[in-house]
Amino acid sequence: MSLIQVINPNTSLAMTETIGAAARAVAAPGTEILAVCPTHGVESIEGHFDEAIAAIGVLEQVKRGKAQGVSGHIIACFGDPGLLAARELASGPVIGIAEAAMHTATLVATRFSIVTTLPRTLVIARHLLQQYGFTHHCAALHAIDLPVLALEDGSGVAQEKVRQRCMQAKREDGSGAIVLGCGGMATLAQDLTKELGIPVIDGVSAAVKMVESLVALGFGTSKHGDLDYPLEKPLSGAFQHLN
Amino acid sequence: MSLIQVINPNTSLAMTETIGAAARAVAAPGTEILAVCPTHGVESIEGHFDEAIAAIGVLEQVKRGKAQGVSGHIIACFGDPGLLAARELASGPVIGIAEAAMHTATLVATRFSIVTTLPRTLVIARHLLQQYGFTHHCAALHAIDLPVLALEDGSGVAQEKVRQRCMQAKREDGSGAIVLGCGGMATLAQDLTKELGIPVIDGVSAAVKMVESLVALGFGTSKHGDLDYPLEKPLSGAFQHLN
Amino acid sequence: MSLIQVINPNTSLAMTETIGAAARAVAAPGTEILAVCPTHGVESIEGHFDEAIAAIGVLEQVKRGKAQGVSGHIIACFGDPGLLAARELASGPVIGIAEAAMHTATLVATRFSIVTTLPRTLVIARHLLQQYGFTHHCAALHAIDLPVLALEDGSGVAQEKVRQRCMQAKREDGSGAIVLGCGGMATLAQDLTKELGIPVIDGVSAAVKMVESLVALGFGTSKHGDLDYPLEKPLSGAFQHLN
Amino acid sequence: MSLIQVINPNTSLAMTETIGAAARAVAAPGTEILAVCPTHGVESIEGHFDEAIAAIGVLEQVKRGKAQGVSGHIIACFGDPGLLAARELASGPVIGIAEAAMHTATLVATRFSIVTTLPRTLVIARHLLQQYGFTHHCAALHAIDLPVLALEDGSGVAQEKVRQRCMQAKREDGSGAIVLGCGGMATLAQDLTKELGIPVIDGVSAAVKMVESLVALGFGTSKHGDLDYPLEKPLSGAFQHLN
Amino acid sequence: MSLIQVINPNTSLAMTETIGAAARAVAAPGTEILAVCPTHGVESIEGHFDEAIAAIGVLEQVKRGKAQGVSGHIIACFGDPGLLAARELASGPVIGIAEAAMHTATLVATRFSIVTTLPRTLVIARHLLQQYGFTHHCAALHAIDLPVLALEDGSGVAQEKVRQRCMQAKREDGSGAIVLGCGGMATLAQDLTKELGIPVIDGVSAAVKMVESLVALGFGTSKHGDLDYPLEKPLSGAFQHLN
Amino acid sequence: MSLIQVINPNTSLAMTETIGAAARAVAAPGTEILAVCPTHGVESIEGHFDEAIAAIGVLEQVKRGKAQGVSGHIIACFGDPGLLAARELASGPVIGIAEAAMHTATLVATRFSIVTTLPRTLVIARHLLQQYGFTHHCAALHAIDLPVLALEDGSGVAQEKVRQRCMQAKREDGSGAIVLGCGGMATLAQDLTKELGIPVIDGVSAAVKMVESLVALGFGTSKHGDLDYPLEKPLSGAFQHLN
Repeated sequence: MSLIQVINPNTSLAMTETIGAAARAVAAPGTEILAVCPTHGVESIEGHFDEAIAAIGVLEQVKRGKAQGVSGHIIACFGDPGLLAARELASGPVIGIAEAAMHTATLVATRFSIVTTLPRTLVIARHLLQQYGFTHHCAALHAIDLPVLALEDGSGVAQEKVRQRCMQAKREDGSGAIVLGCGGMATLAQDLTKELGIPVIDGVSAAVKMVESLVALGFGTSKHGDLDYPLEKPLSGAFQHLN
Repeated sequence: MSLIQVINPNTSLAMTETIGAAARAVAAPGTEILAVCPTHGVESIEGHFDEAIAAIGVLEQVKRGKAQGVSGHIIACFGDPGLLAARELASGPVIGIAEAAMHTATLVATRFSIVTTLPRTLVIARHLLQQYGFTHHCAALHAIDLPVLALEDGSGVAQEKVRQRCMQAKREDGSGAIVLGCGGMATLAQDLTKELGIPVIDGVSAAVKMVESLVALGFGTSKHGDLDYPLEKPLSGAFQHLN
Repeated sequence: MSLIQVINPNTSLAMTETIGAAARAVAAPGTEILAVCPTHGVESIEGHFDEAIAAIGVLEQVKRGKAQGVSGHIIACFGDPGLLAARELASGPVIGIAEAAMHTATLVATRFSIVTTLPRTLVIARHLLQQYGFTHHCAALHAIDLPVLALEDGSGVAQEKVRQRCMQAKREDGSGAIVLGCGGMATLAQDLTKELGIPVIDGVSAAVKMVESLVALGFGTSKHGDLDYPLEKPLSGAFQHLN
Repeated sequence: MSLIQVINPNTSLAMTETIGAAARAVAAPGTEILAVCPTHGVESIEGHFDEAIAAIGVLEQVKRGKAQGVSGHIIACFGDPGLLAARELASGPVIGIAEAAMHTATLVATRFSIVTTLPRTLVIARHLLQQYGFTHHCAALHAIDLPVLALEDGSGVAQEKVRQRCMQAKREDGSGAIVLGCGGMATLAQDLTKELGIPVIDGVSAAVKMVESLVALGFGTSKHGDLDYPLEKPLSGAFQHLN
Repeated sequence: MSLIQVINPNTSLAMTETIGAAARAVAAPGTEILAVCPTHGVESIEGHFDEAIAAIGVLEQVKRGKAQGVSGHIIACFGDPGLLAARELASGPVIGIAEAAMHTATLVATRFSIVTTLPRTLVIARHLLQQYGFTHHCAALHAIDLPVLALEDGSGVAQEKVRQRCMQAKREDGSGAIVLGCGGMATLAQDLTKELGIPVIDGVSAAVKMVESLVALGFGTSKHGDLDYPLEKPLSGAFQHLN
Repeated sequence: MSLIQVINPNTSLAMTETIGAAARAVAAPGTEILAVCPTHGVESIEGHFDEAIAAIGVLEQVKRGKAQGVSGHIIACFGDPGLLAARELASGPVIGIAEAAMHTATLVATRFSIVTTLPRTLVIARHLLQQYGFTHHCAALHAIDLPVLALEDGSGVAQEKVRQRCMQAKREDGSGAIVLGCGGMATLAQDLTKELGIPVIDGVSAAVKMVESLVALGFGTSKHGDLDYPLEKPLSGAFQHLN
């Protein structure tokens, strides 16, 4: 029995449920999904400031998950906020959903496109492409120009915009796959994959399979060198609970 | 029930068994492993010429596997010979073991080292690092300077050399993980991971989990664009069986 | 009269003083230096976890500085924690000391070396080199293998190790300049520059001149696009004070 | 007297003649051109699968050419299939026509455009640009969206499409030269060069001059290290003739 | 009292005045600007040939400036002609205006656009981006397609074209800042910055602050290694005055 | 009958003869070599300052060569001084010897080493590798730490040092070929190629074959775009003869 912690780094309970559902939909029989989000923080993550706040929530949850004996952790926001910090803290594997989706895309196509929410988040995706090594595998980045929470307003407008952009990307970018650039788009992947006839990749489900895989292979985060546990030193004030 | 075809691109039955065993050791309950190798070809793959020969055997096996209804294919030679050609031919996912090991390494460490057999194969690994985007994630490449088949001679000399090189790499490269650069090293990974206390990654087992994951996510190779099925045209003479 | 806020992202008052002194030593006649550090956080920053904590402190101080009417902000830790988040929050310029030192080094030499504290922080420096575009301008990175606070223990051991490493770097790397990789080394730069006869660059003083320059040129952080102010949304709980 | 073997990797005799004629048109007085193609294989090469098949034919011909005492070998398909494998096998120089055309373009212009046949072959060209180092020298890649054999159908439609695309590329890409991306376009280069007033480069003729040059300089393929002769080992079954 | 030599590498006295005025407008109280240009050379610099000529004028002026005891030198042409040669000759800092503007842009925005004069100069800007490390920080390059001296013809046509292009770049490139790609545009920066509401950066004023900063930090050009003084050897004929 | 102008950019008549002899040794029957050097300039080129001076001499000679009706031009100094400026001025092809040697090396080996004179010239070679696209094809750069003119002192000491370094490079770098990094080493290439058993490449002879090839293919420097003739404008004073 394996327990995977899926951390929604924002405080939206609705989105946490969306993400948890997407994770459960692909979890292997022996896998239990624990979908959580921080108590404090921001309701949606649309920039570096939001990410810095969210990273603290991620670390709190990783610490909590570790105490609960989870096998691995997923950071379910497309900017992968706090990824390397979380890897220091964790002993098991930690996977970001941007990372998971980008890796997956390169396995099924020579080039992929990204469809995300606000244009201001594109710079974050670009930095991740560079850090992960996939700058040359990404044919184009697109933004639907709606905030993250538009995906939760029940109107379906954002979802339709995502769908339109995906179709346009298939037609114009010469990409063989599309990466959905927001945890809140997780539930769209399956239908779009069918409709478009190409892999439309949601990072949440991809990350679940990655954590399961690493656990099955017996690999946690390497504690040799760069990602070793944080050096022990007193965390003061508002951060004492992270001690 | 999912059937994964593990293709050893060389003709060594002993190595095919080694590889098949490594694959079975990590396969999920619902996965069956079909370990195969070409009838014709080379006994070991240690250069571009050997790879070109082996690629044909890989394609023959992919075609056969497809007819047998396998869910996905693994190319179990560290140069990933014929990978993109096999992706054109296949409808399911196709994963190379160098690709699998390298991707895996970047998920558990910031940088990794590669330990392989002959120095002349290093150039192939370097080209793959560049193609997959991981040039900057690889801290160093090492060769034990023994041919591939030394791993099958029963003496254990090659295995001990691999072990020594891994320990040296851990000490000197500042790497958090080690990638084993030959399908024939598959059985060493687990023990070395324990002894060294860092992830020592065999691509065969890593690839099994990747194919299982892609299948579970509903993704085959994208047939849109670059990796679409080969255009239909008559294959003549020695290649007729690939029609 | 221009007020520059120098933020030491750790909670060490001693180091805040060191940094403030280094800043004041180069400040122009019309510049006043406001050296601050967070009330809560970590005493020293030696990894990604520490950086994530420190980033919150940086943001708190930027917000406070803005309210005080400072002209610009400096993040005085070599990992530049929270740099892009701080830029979103600020209207004036924000400069990290790694950024400042690296830019400065490329203006006086074709290649530079970095001398820092613990080996585990090298990966952070490597990521910054890549992000800022200077990977090919850096000939080598060195760590003295002592924690940051060894620079504050009064023994001078760490300082002597820095000096030795700088001399070795000059001799062996073919570099024309050396970048000191820790805010706590700020006071060493001037003497080492004299002793070694090459620019030994401290990011704190370099950053002061950069902020002064940007202010004189009339440039703050661009609010068009990626670095626009954070979208307004409620920050809950422990982060309310950042609203 | 120098004998250069020009290998058309597909089985089209018409294209072999086209290529042979283009080679002879630029051969130096002392050079004899031996234009050959495999007996078995594919009629045209438009993807990785086709390339893998064609590589075997290339190796057969290189072996044959060596036995005939040729001075050097040319692989006359724009994907340069089997190039490094052929270099292992050969003692003289081996040049691919994509390689030849791209190198030549960088000597007469700061940036070049590529005009090729089907869009699915663009990924191959992109990989070669990366491997050869010319990613940043290529301003744009264009496909006329017709299969290779359309160049041999006598209608002139494909040729006219190439011409249109070259003119468009000159106008819009800011390129100083154009590389023709198919062996079957060899005969167009000279007229287009005149009509457009910029170098329009055919790789076949460029490769002939490169082989002649290397032979005159006394250079064959280096047998030190990566490109040494294939290790001797029995090739079984369908590959015995390559022993 | 610090004396900064601003070298206009072309022979246009009008442009030398423009540049000198831009420099004086931002100079610190203690800084005196010495705006000079070569006696012999070209009236405007629009290509590599012009740059090669201009580099000699730059070196003459650097030598003269050194004799006059200037603290540092600025090369006020956007191609930074003779920069590394001038650094060898100088003991103080030498800054090119393309270098200054590009560095500055990366401090206030994640990506920038360049607006310059003739399309043929774009290749020079591209090479500088690569050399300085900023290829990935530049979103787009634009040319108004007017020669440099159109900026001095009094009609204001070129200035209006620059303005239009800057507005278009802001709208379409997703850039947070714009770099003006010609010394003759120096006086436009301040007004465009106000009108567009984003940093529009002139390299002349940016370079003045950089030289002032380096001088204040006690840094000249490193004389260790690559940028050491030219080896002493007789300069003959037309170059004797550079001895 | 084709006339190739080989320009030694320094004023050493002895080295001009060495270079001319190396060029003639490989020239095709129909090629005449015109070896020239500037009347004014520096006796040897060992840095950016020397290169800036030499570039003027190169341009003078290109202009003269053009008047004499030469078919193409070679810049016979390993830094390729004035290459792009000369290409603007010329109608025929212009090849630098660093360019020629580097291109040639990539055709016969997967990686090469460079052996040059003074360490301070390595930065120039590194910039050229980057500009030409060969950074990843160069395994290592070595300097014998003797000035260029030591190659002309008749003692053979420098030559022996070059030989030793080449042998060391072959042994330690894993390179299949060596590039000689100075025009004055031209005569060593043939003997070293024989002694070491790998291609030891002199750029002068390689450049001769490249110019011959381009001429045979009917290609001069592209006059479309970046390398068009210099815009006509008066060159004043010391540069009037370049009008």
